[in-house]
Amino acid sequence: MLYEEIKVGDTASFEKTISKEDVFAFAGVTGDFNPLHIDETHAENTRFGKRIAHGMLTGSLFSTVFGMKLPGEGAIYLSQTLSFLAPVFFGDTIKATAVVKEKLGKGRVKFDCVATNQDGEVVVRGEAVLLAAKEGPNG
Amino acid sequence: MLYEEIKVGDTASFEKTISKEDVFAFAGVTGDFNPLHIDETHAENTRFGKRIAHGMLTGSLFSTVFGMKLPGEGAIYLSQTLSFLAPVFFGDTIKATAVVKEKLGKGRVKFDCVATNQDGEVVVRGEAVLLAAKEGPNG
Repeated sequence: MLYEEIKVGDTASFEKTISKEDVFAFAGVTGDFNPLHIDETHAENTRFGKRIAHGMLTGSLFSTVFGMKLPGEGAIYLSQTLSFLAPVFFGDTIKATAVVKEKLGKGRVKFDCVATNQDGEVVVRGEAVLLAAKEGPNG
Repeated sequence: MLYEEIKVGDTASFEKTISKEDVFAFAGVTGDFNPLHIDETHAENTRFGKRIAHGMLTGSLFSTVFGMKLPGEGAIYLSQTLSFLAPVFFGDTIKATAVVKEKLGKGRVKFDCVATNQDGEVVVRGEAVLLAAKEGPNG
């Protein structure tokens, strides 16, 4: 969507179930083999009681919203803040939602970001700034 | 590392080359198939001239530093901010570094985060807050 077309309050979401396979692939790509994510025996003895997904995996679902939906094609990611508020367990279904909070000028758009699990609990919250395309997909 | 052992100025890094395979795996895990990351023909017509890695992939390397090195085992990720300052191309070697900026009390540690490419250019910068373990690996 072009900058001119974006309105405060516009919203888009992406929802997916976070699988064990996702977590292991994410560990392989990033090198983050923290036992909290990959070692069930270890995780059983932590405050969480079982393995949890990487917070940055959940946070990356906002990138999906921005890259695929709003603003979508041609958008450039400028910044993202993330607060990790609750654990995401294997099999949880996470819905990442971005809402246009403010148009900052010069193509820049500020979004409120919230990710919730299948129980409606907020697991990640943050803000992002995107540079939206101004003249078309390749503008 | 336990909270009591952490000192302002402590630093840790993780470095890896970002491959095409990493980017496709990251797209598969997150659902972010933005053509800027996966479509070379599309990417040639953008300001970048070729495909770039997801910014959140680069940003996730800080999670690796925190989970694997400093504070390491037992640490809980509370928050992360990221500014995406320059593109990361396939084959770039990224070094993610975290430096202890401030001890906030109650186990919480604030870090400065910077990721540079093989030319020393800063590609991502941010801050993070981690809850460090206080009584041992499972404390």
